[in-house]
Amino acid sequence: MTVRLTRRYYFAASHRLHSPALTDAENRETFGKCNNPYGHGHDYEVELTVRGEVDAITGRMVDVPTLDRLTEDQILTPFRWRNLNEEVEVFRTEVPTTENLAREVDRRLRVVWRTAFPQDEPRLEKVRIRETDRNICEVTGCP
Amino acid sequence: MTVRLTRRYYFAASHRLHSPALTDAENRETFGKCNNPYGHGHDYEVELTVRGEVDAITGRMVDVPTLDRLTEDQILTPFRWRNLNEEVEVFRTEVPTTENLAREVDRRLRVVWRTAFPQDEPRLEKVRIRETDRNICEVTGCP
Amino acid sequence: MTVRLTRRYYFAASHRLHSPALTDAENRETFGKCNNPYGHGHDYEVELTVRGEVDAITGRMVDVPTLDRLTEDQILTPFRWRNLNEEVEVFRTEVPTTENLAREVDRRLRVVWRTAFPQDEPRLEKVRIRETDRNICEVTGCP
Amino acid sequence: MTVRLTRRYYFAASHRLHSPALTDAENRETFGKCNNPYGHGHDYEVELTVRGEVDAITGRMVDVPTLDRLTEDQILTPFRWRNLNEEVEVFRTEVPTTENLAREVDRRLRVVWRTAFPQDEPRLEKVRIRETDRNICEVTGCP
Amino acid sequence: MTVRLTRRYYFAASHRLHSPALTDAENRETFGKCNNPYGHGHDYEVELTVRGEVDAITGRMVDVPTLDRLTEDQILTPFRWRNLNEEVEVFRTEVPTTENLAREVDRRLRVVWRTAFPQDEPRLEKVRIRETDRNICEVTGCP
Amino acid sequence: MTVRLTRRYYFAASHRLHSPALTDAENRETFGKCNNPYGHGHDYEVELTVRGEVDAITGRMVDVPTLDRLTEDQILTPFRWRNLNEEVEVFRTEVPTTENLAREVDRRLRVVWRTAFPQDEPRLEKVRIRETDRNICEVTGCP
Repeated sequence: MTVRLTRRYYFAASHRLHSPALTDAENRETFGKCNNPYGHGHDYEVELTVRGEVDAITGRMVDVPTLDRLTEDQILTPFRWRNLNEEVEVFRTEVPTTENLAREVDRRLRVVWRTAFPQDEPRLEKVRIRETDRNICEVTGCP
Repeated sequence: MTVRLTRRYYFAASHRLHSPALTDAENRETFGKCNNPYGHGHDYEVELTVRGEVDAITGRMVDVPTLDRLTEDQILTPFRWRNLNEEVEVFRTEVPTTENLAREVDRRLRVVWRTAFPQDEPRLEKVRIRETDRNICEVTGCP
Repeated sequence: MTVRLTRRYYFAASHRLHSPALTDAENRETFGKCNNPYGHGHDYEVELTVRGEVDAITGRMVDVPTLDRLTEDQILTPFRWRNLNEEVEVFRTEVPTTENLAREVDRRLRVVWRTAFPQDEPRLEKVRIRETDRNICEVTGCP
Repeated sequence: MTVRLTRRYYFAASHRLHSPALTDAENRETFGKCNNPYGHGHDYEVELTVRGEVDAITGRMVDVPTLDRLTEDQILTPFRWRNLNEEVEVFRTEVPTTENLAREVDRRLRVVWRTAFPQDEPRLEKVRIRETDRNICEVTGCP
Repeated sequence: MTVRLTRRYYFAASHRLHSPALTDAENRETFGKCNNPYGHGHDYEVELTVRGEVDAITGRMVDVPTLDRLTEDQILTPFRWRNLNEEVEVFRTEVPTTENLAREVDRRLRVVWRTAFPQDEPRLEKVRIRETDRNICEVTGCP
Repeated sequence: MTVRLTRRYYFAASHRLHSPALTDAENRETFGKCNNPYGHGHDYEVELTVRGEVDAITGRMVDVPTLDRLTEDQILTPFRWRNLNEEVEVFRTEVPTTENLAREVDRRLRVVWRTAFPQDEPRLEKVRIRETDRNICEVTGCP
């Protein structure tokens, strides 16, 4: 039997879809209105799914305050009310699409995961970003 | 018997809470993190409520395509994927809070309302803006 | 202090926007794709708002099982999984728009209201029909 | 033009519908399964609607941190994760129905309102409690 | 690392659960009220999940306008405001249950997928249909 | 092609996070405010996902009334409006966390599954419990 726990978090941020590797004309053609130089924003929803053993005594699979604090420090504080392109280092070069945002959340959590959860227990299994009701990206399966 | 019809619309935009009438320090104290110079964004939901007579033959109170086109032209096209402070004239001087955004939507619709609905029938009764699930503003009751 | 209680109910039904008082061409022009002869359907949400005194002993303003049964008998059973145009008498002549549907729900409840609530206490104050997230109609204020 | 701002808050609590003024048999008949002696619980949603003037400089009608702190202190901290019947004084005698809960939230906020908002500006206009999606109560209109 | 993107679409339609391979009595017994000859309707939600590589320059895994147009042409235009039994060929013989509807959406998209996405990149991984909040079907895993 | 059907159910209940295997001090430290002796409650959402063959004639994968009745008898009736710690046997010793609640729902359904679905067709694939919007647990994969 496999048990997974999902926690959901929220932050508002702005972004602009624009690649420094493309010309202005290519950017406009690729990203359309989302290439507007002033940017626009979203209320992002982040879901983290962890998988592991349920402790026989506490009935819990993950220490929720530890997971919440990790997410607050690594994701919510650096991203909330920010312009992702200007204020988050990786998005100076990568385009802050939902895909890249999900990958960055995944990377940031994995860097510190074993500090917070030394046995890699529970494991971080999935990162899911809902940009809008119609646009959702998830990342799974690091080795 | 009073009948009201509500239509719901959506747009994403970014804004920064900052008043040109305040010093930088006052702005930071008043608006906190929302004063971040790069701005942040939201997925705004706009609800328009109209009140009027139901047509005996069509069973309708408002010509929905007319209302949708009016909203598209006056609100959604000028606001969608925009930086409200930089790209919407009124917010160069007014702070784009939910309150001021609701008032601006209300003003923009009233300016053209009688062109679209010559008898002021139906009447525009309420404009409601949901910035986030926790922050909602509505404007009612022009004379 | 005024206290209002709102109960929410659901039913699925199909309808066709078509007026027997209009020609086929007028119907197509007025209702567009919603005039499709085969009809289409929705999952309707019905909200009833009642207003009244809170009983000092039970802490309740309305006997909820009575309200639920009334709504089941008058609205949900006759409308659920029905073709409104063909199987609900009034919609043989009236067009089953959200406006007319809200008015019919209001009428049906008022006819029997005083049988269920003899003192007209609580009063039925508002009927609200959500056809889709974008199209909502409410009826208030019978004398 | 009237402007209203609504803020939404959440807390989980348990309650039992049981009146000390009724016999056990009457309680069972009146409240049915909700009279279960062990109680049951809900995730309550509280919406506060305030009405007032929008400040010409800040574009705001209410100091949101003040409202949030007031609600935290008067409502969320005393109610969250509590058994309402046992741990909230008024519900030792009043039945913690949605109606009485909304009235108690209204009363608690009004007692301290003018301390937080000395000019009674903005005014607290409405308290709305969503117990479940199907059961919602609102209180308005103190003099 | 596996990346998936999900897009969500909506259409309203009506259907009747009725199999030409069963007698009228068997149909009534099998499908109950859903066998009502006039049909009933729903607001269907369609989620498409695609899996693939994120482009290093654009940060995108799928050309969203291409996916949206494919879905509009193959699914939304033929199904929206339709009576599925009468106006969608396959449902003249198959019963338009949520299961069969999900399979038909899957089939229709796969027929044209490689025209729109010549390298089968990204791959269509999952089709999910939400008929109501309580009834959801998903289809995965074509070879 | 794999087809899955998901049904969603609801019940309200109360619980207290407290382990008889821990001291009072350890319980308080482990569970914080959720260890409050009076308990608190939630509106739980249960999603059951089954996987199987779609019947060629009926277009259905599962007899929905059978699944609904099974869930009503095994889960909803014993849990609804209950204090889980006091009134559900297993939670006298196990802590009623979302993890343990999902496992208990899974166990209860499997015990009777083959009585209701003799060929183990469809299979019960996943049990998902949403305690709040932010806390969700799922159990999959019995042999």
